[in-house]
Amino acid sequence: MSDNSAISLPNASPAAESPFIQELVKQWRAQDGRGAWDKISDEVLIAPYIVTREQRRSLPLMGDPDAKTLLRLELFYSAVGLAIERRTGVAAMPMIKLHQEGFGRVVLLAGRLVVVSRNLRDVHRFGFESMEKLAAEGEKLVDAGVEMVNSFPEVVNYNS
Amino acid sequence: MSDNSAISLPNASPAAESPFIQELVKQWRAQDGRGAWDKISDEVLIAPYIVTREQRRSLPLMGDPDAKTLLRLELFYSAVGLAIERRTGVAAMPMIKLHQEGFGRVVLLAGRLVVVSRNLRDVHRFGFESMEKLAAEGEKLVDAGVEMVNSFPEVVNYNS
Repeated sequence: MSDNSAISLPNASPAAESPFIQELVKQWRAQDGRGAWDKISDEVLIAPYIVTREQRRSLPLMGDPDAKTLLRLELFYSAVGLAIERRTGVAAMPMIKLHQEGFGRVVLLAGRLVVVSRNLRDVHRFGFESMEKLAAEGEKLVDAGVEMVNSFPEVVNYNS
Repeated sequence: MSDNSAISLPNASPAAESPFIQELVKQWRAQDGRGAWDKISDEVLIAPYIVTREQRRSLPLMGDPDAKTLLRLELFYSAVGLAIERRTGVAAMPMIKLHQEGFGRVVLLAGRLVVVSRNLRDVHRFGFESMEKLAAEGEKLVDAGVEMVNSFPEVVNYNS
């Protein structure tokens, strides 16, 4: 028996059990080569994704988003890609293009197929109102990506 | 009659007449809002793409490629995308992802289709041995992109 139970929060959200959230947590744990976050619970680890309406309003949109925000964005879409891979066996790689001022586009590519495509705006404020919304949004993107892979396998497997 | 003939070089390469080179020249002219390059011939304008074997060897691969090199790379692939659009009616947008040290990937996206995909290396040295090779490489990418668009129209036109 491990002592993992000691570090989970008493009011842990059931959303934390979603496969997408589990994938997202793995992405963050993978950043932690030295084990500095070993005693930090999953929920605390991904808490920066929760940005309430009030917090959103207080975040300035001037200039370019900072490195922490960009990492949050990148790992969110990496987690979507890995969850798609887990369900289809096909790797989906994120590419992010940011213009100035937090606008841009993110795509997830599997072979020659764009399995997920999103325009980005207000990247400075990238986040979700609750853990439930984070899980739901992640799962929605994963579902859409899986459907694309299944719809166009010949494009995914195209060899050039 | 315009006086364009006055600024073309006497030994102008026939490659300069290729549709791809014409598209590339347009990309560069579009950067020149003030008309500062109006008297510069097309061949001189895109001369930085010509990097001989000796020049390649002398270019250091340390650190990240500089802004001029990145612009050269971006406008090359923008020109490929616009030449594809001219032949198919479908816009093909470049996305470039550079890792450290000049490695990365470039894709051209039309709808949900990756019409061109290239791994990048030695971006510091991005260039071609001659105008003929620049034209040939550009046309090759355009041809491949057009073929992809024609092979998978349902992916290009997919609405999500």
